[in-house]
Amino acid sequence: MRIGFLGVGGMSTPMINNLLTDGHQVSIWNRTAAKCEALSDSGAVVVQTPAEACERSGIVMSCLAGDPSVDAVLSDGAVVDKLGEGGIHVAMSTVSAQCTTTHLEAHKNRGVTLIAAPIVGRPDAVAARMQSYLIAGDRDAKAKVTPILDALGAKVFDFGDEPATASIAKIAFNFLIASAIESMAEAFTVIEKSGIDKQSFYELVTGTAFGCRIYEGYGKLIHERTFDSPLFSLALGLKDVSLAQEAMHQAGVAAPFAQLLVDRYSQAVDDGLGETDWTGITETVRKESGL
Amino acid sequence: MRIGFLGVGGMSTPMINNLLTDGHQVSIWNRTAAKCEALSDSGAVVVQTPAEACERSGIVMSCLAGDPSVDAVLSDGAVVDKLGEGGIHVAMSTVSAQCTTTHLEAHKNRGVTLIAAPIVGRPDAVAARMQSYLIAGDRDAKAKVTPILDALGAKVFDFGDEPATASIAKIAFNFLIASAIESMAEAFTVIEKSGIDKQSFYELVTGTAFGCRIYEGYGKLIHERTFDSPLFSLALGLKDVSLAQEAMHQAGVAAPFAQLLVDRYSQAVDDGLGETDWTGITETVRKESGL
Amino acid sequence: MRIGFLGVGGMSTPMINNLLTDGHQVSIWNRTAAKCEALSDSGAVVVQTPAEACERSGIVMSCLAGDPSVDAVLSDGAVVDKLGEGGIHVAMSTVSAQCTTTHLEAHKNRGVTLIAAPIVGRPDAVAARMQSYLIAGDRDAKAKVTPILDALGAKVFDFGDEPATASIAKIAFNFLIASAIESMAEAFTVIEKSGIDKQSFYELVTGTAFGCRIYEGYGKLIHERTFDSPLFSLALGLKDVSLAQEAMHQAGVAAPFAQLLVDRYSQAVDDGLGETDWTGITETVRKESGL
Amino acid sequence: MRIGFLGVGGMSTPMINNLLTDGHQVSIWNRTAAKCEALSDSGAVVVQTPAEACERSGIVMSCLAGDPSVDAVLSDGAVVDKLGEGGIHVAMSTVSAQCTTTHLEAHKNRGVTLIAAPIVGRPDAVAARMQSYLIAGDRDAKAKVTPILDALGAKVFDFGDEPATASIAKIAFNFLIASAIESMAEAFTVIEKSGIDKQSFYELVTGTAFGCRIYEGYGKLIHERTFDSPLFSLALGLKDVSLAQEAMHQAGVAAPFAQLLVDRYSQAVDDGLGETDWTGITETVRKESGL
Repeated sequence: MRIGFLGVGGMSTPMINNLLTDGHQVSIWNRTAAKCEALSDSGAVVVQTPAEACERSGIVMSCLAGDPSVDAVLSDGAVVDKLGEGGIHVAMSTVSAQCTTTHLEAHKNRGVTLIAAPIVGRPDAVAARMQSYLIAGDRDAKAKVTPILDALGAKVFDFGDEPATASIAKIAFNFLIASAIESMAEAFTVIEKSGIDKQSFYELVTGTAFGCRIYEGYGKLIHERTFDSPLFSLALGLKDVSLAQEAMHQAGVAAPFAQLLVDRYSQAVDDGLGETDWTGITETVRKESGL
Repeated sequence: MRIGFLGVGGMSTPMINNLLTDGHQVSIWNRTAAKCEALSDSGAVVVQTPAEACERSGIVMSCLAGDPSVDAVLSDGAVVDKLGEGGIHVAMSTVSAQCTTTHLEAHKNRGVTLIAAPIVGRPDAVAARMQSYLIAGDRDAKAKVTPILDALGAKVFDFGDEPATASIAKIAFNFLIASAIESMAEAFTVIEKSGIDKQSFYELVTGTAFGCRIYEGYGKLIHERTFDSPLFSLALGLKDVSLAQEAMHQAGVAAPFAQLLVDRYSQAVDDGLGETDWTGITETVRKESGL
Repeated sequence: MRIGFLGVGGMSTPMINNLLTDGHQVSIWNRTAAKCEALSDSGAVVVQTPAEACERSGIVMSCLAGDPSVDAVLSDGAVVDKLGEGGIHVAMSTVSAQCTTTHLEAHKNRGVTLIAAPIVGRPDAVAARMQSYLIAGDRDAKAKVTPILDALGAKVFDFGDEPATASIAKIAFNFLIASAIESMAEAFTVIEKSGIDKQSFYELVTGTAFGCRIYEGYGKLIHERTFDSPLFSLALGLKDVSLAQEAMHQAGVAAPFAQLLVDRYSQAVDDGLGETDWTGITETVRKESGL
Repeated sequence: MRIGFLGVGGMSTPMINNLLTDGHQVSIWNRTAAKCEALSDSGAVVVQTPAEACERSGIVMSCLAGDPSVDAVLSDGAVVDKLGEGGIHVAMSTVSAQCTTTHLEAHKNRGVTLIAAPIVGRPDAVAARMQSYLIAGDRDAKAKVTPILDALGAKVFDFGDEPATASIAKIAFNFLIASAIESMAEAFTVIEKSGIDKQSFYELVTGTAFGCRIYEGYGKLIHERTFDSPLFSLALGLKDVSLAQEAMHQAGVAAPFAQLLVDRYSQAVDDGLGETDWTGITETVRKESGL
């Protein structure tokens, strides 16, 4: 199948590689073209504008950094114009419900179906096809897209007909991760300051009631303080906890954890931690605790 | 083996039953004797005072509600007097480091070894011998006690020679649970208010990166709002988040989540939710969100 | 809602209790009426024949021991006659595809919809509403039944329109469990005979790549050899591995593990182990290894 | 710290990289020197013989393919001669108990301590420091080595004082994996031949009682039949199930699954599948089932 792909970064590079391995023809576009080089060597066709990655009634996937990037790519209407009647846009970015809803309207006007399909998993999981997708949108379009996503990743979770629901569910999911990270940062710091072996605490946590990827993977980064090879940066973490707070606000939910996380990630970015892994929030806890 | 057991409640009843099944002779004491009746029918010997449950150089286990209950049982010195030289006290209660350290001194003065062995797991896990123990204290006494605990539960995690470390580690562990609960309460409420299927969100969370007991078990209670058969009450939750905040304070850790949890659980208890399951904090989130 | 329930045993008793808690009116039938007593006290209506538990165009659930029990209940046609046009039969038993297909025909002839909904989970999970369901059958009937099952348990997995597919998938699932049990029985026996601490091996297995319910729960029974309180008997295990071998045979699959499991469970039942837990197959391995 | 490392392959390359990142000076040796090049660029010192990687009273780690490779490296005695009194050899290879015991004797004669420390985890886990170690041997040497292994990976499981016990426990662990793979191969084949959606079955298995790395990771390879990028080859799988059968035989354990696995992996290697991933045994099941 011919597939267009907008946005070439840490998450999309291994995905595009796997699409190529699966025998698809992939046209890729990225704002900074240099990131496309390795994929070009692997057989992807590099194009100069988002619209060139699309073809009439075809499928284009997008995986971009957030609302502003999505707006920048879609706002001139060239992508949906090119896709036209019967085209499908699979939007994998983690964005606000408003962003999804706004663009949905523009898609409908041109007969293009917008499927929201945000991703759960980090680049290493994507490379191993172990990421999952939330998916929401028109039923027939989902039926076309699901087999491709099933092949690319581990599982596809269906959130119904309304694309914005997948955006909100993804934001709520990432909020759970950010909360788990903050709680571990605080817990491991009290363990450290009390002179208790952090490794033993890690084994207790992951060997009993928290034996899952978030606590095993992020817990290890936190207790060993290895924040320099971010798979997900603290700056992106700030974007996501801000999206969570905004979603809570829009829905009228009183959410003190969400509010608190925005304050903390803002502070951490101000302190120059934006390019560490988002578990680097641990250093904020440690610093405030006199370590 | 002859074993004394102080405190007969939701956690200790199945533990004592399993000790009897394993062929031990168990003398039990509880402040309110009525709770001992079923165990008496199963072969436990009911005694009238904590000291009567002990014998010279023997082993006594205690599983009590918190610092005040432990103080009440130990403060007159009768238990350690009776145990005497070579006696071992296995203290399973979740208590503050201060509580553990204070009583440690009194034990040492009489030649009694205090082993802290707080429990990870709820009554249903204890019945199925799937709970775990943190253990800390004198090496030789741990070597005697570990086989009994290994038989009673799933795993024993060693936290070294200092009993108070097990107390702090247990408190930090429960703080992780309380944080996970609060974050799920907020997340499921935004899902609900946004008109998204809560069951789908639950399946996403537990089917991907949070596939562990805390999120599976408590997540189900939260999304189905079944808080009336508490396996761990919100009032006990308040005790534990307060212990966490106190431990953070003692160690000089700036811990905003811990602080916030104390506020919320206090409010919830004031609102009359003390006897619901601690996942009942969800109702506080919902109420504050206009549901 | 009024619901009929056919078969009152270890799995169905807690399910019926939860249906009553959820506010449903439940009419129950069991071959041996004595098992209905406790549920009668809880508000269930006990009836004398399977057909009496049904009402016109209503819903009846069945949870029976296997093909012969299902045949015995359905063969005279009274149940489907009573349900009639628009009735739904939710069949939760683990049975062969043939059994499901045969009865499907008889249901269709009377306008009754047969939904296969076998259960994943043991009685303790059912009591805590943590079991899952495979579900297959007519789409509209599934839409009616799914909310009830979602409330009763943790997750519902949809296997499409053909009831027999859920039967086969359930059989394949139980075959995975039986294989895991046999492999653990062999592994723990070589650990034991080599003089290695079984508890350490259990912690290694469940603390790394096998951190899931089957290895945690059954692994504990196997390494501690506590087989006397069966949550699933070895005799039922023999039924299920026989169903697996039959399914493999029907599908033309060469399945040496499945074949071998039938031999072993047959031998174990002949050796008088039928009423132990199915992890009791460990005693067969131990005996053959001179222990 | 200065560390020698013998054997540079899929598992050891990321481990050595992480040792370099941790600030250790590492001298590496491999039978085919070409594999050392990238590590040389990263700062490792490449030496020409195993003994040159060692220094008096120092630490050398070895990670080799199996008994013959270990014998080849150790048999001339140069390594233990060079390490001498106080030296420590951390042997990470999965080898037979006999291999470990034989070399233990030679080590002791020169005052060198042999620590068996086989690894649980695949290259991608090792790169992310998520592998675990079984460790057995002299207590003081373990105390020196454990902090290094804790930093390199996730957990260290102590199997006591006798190095061969770690070898046997590792073999039993890999036997559990091979059994899980064979059972999934058979189960997914009956699902496929019965015309049932394999993806749905995968989601059922990993979303309920088998939510752990073995079933999630290998299950995905099996149901998608992607065997061409082996993280662990079928030929190595044959080595490991043969070690399991040998361990069972030595201990006098009647182990029909272990016996059967040797037959199947032998057949698969004869059929030319040796260089696929060991989940490629699925193709043997499929072929014998007429697919």
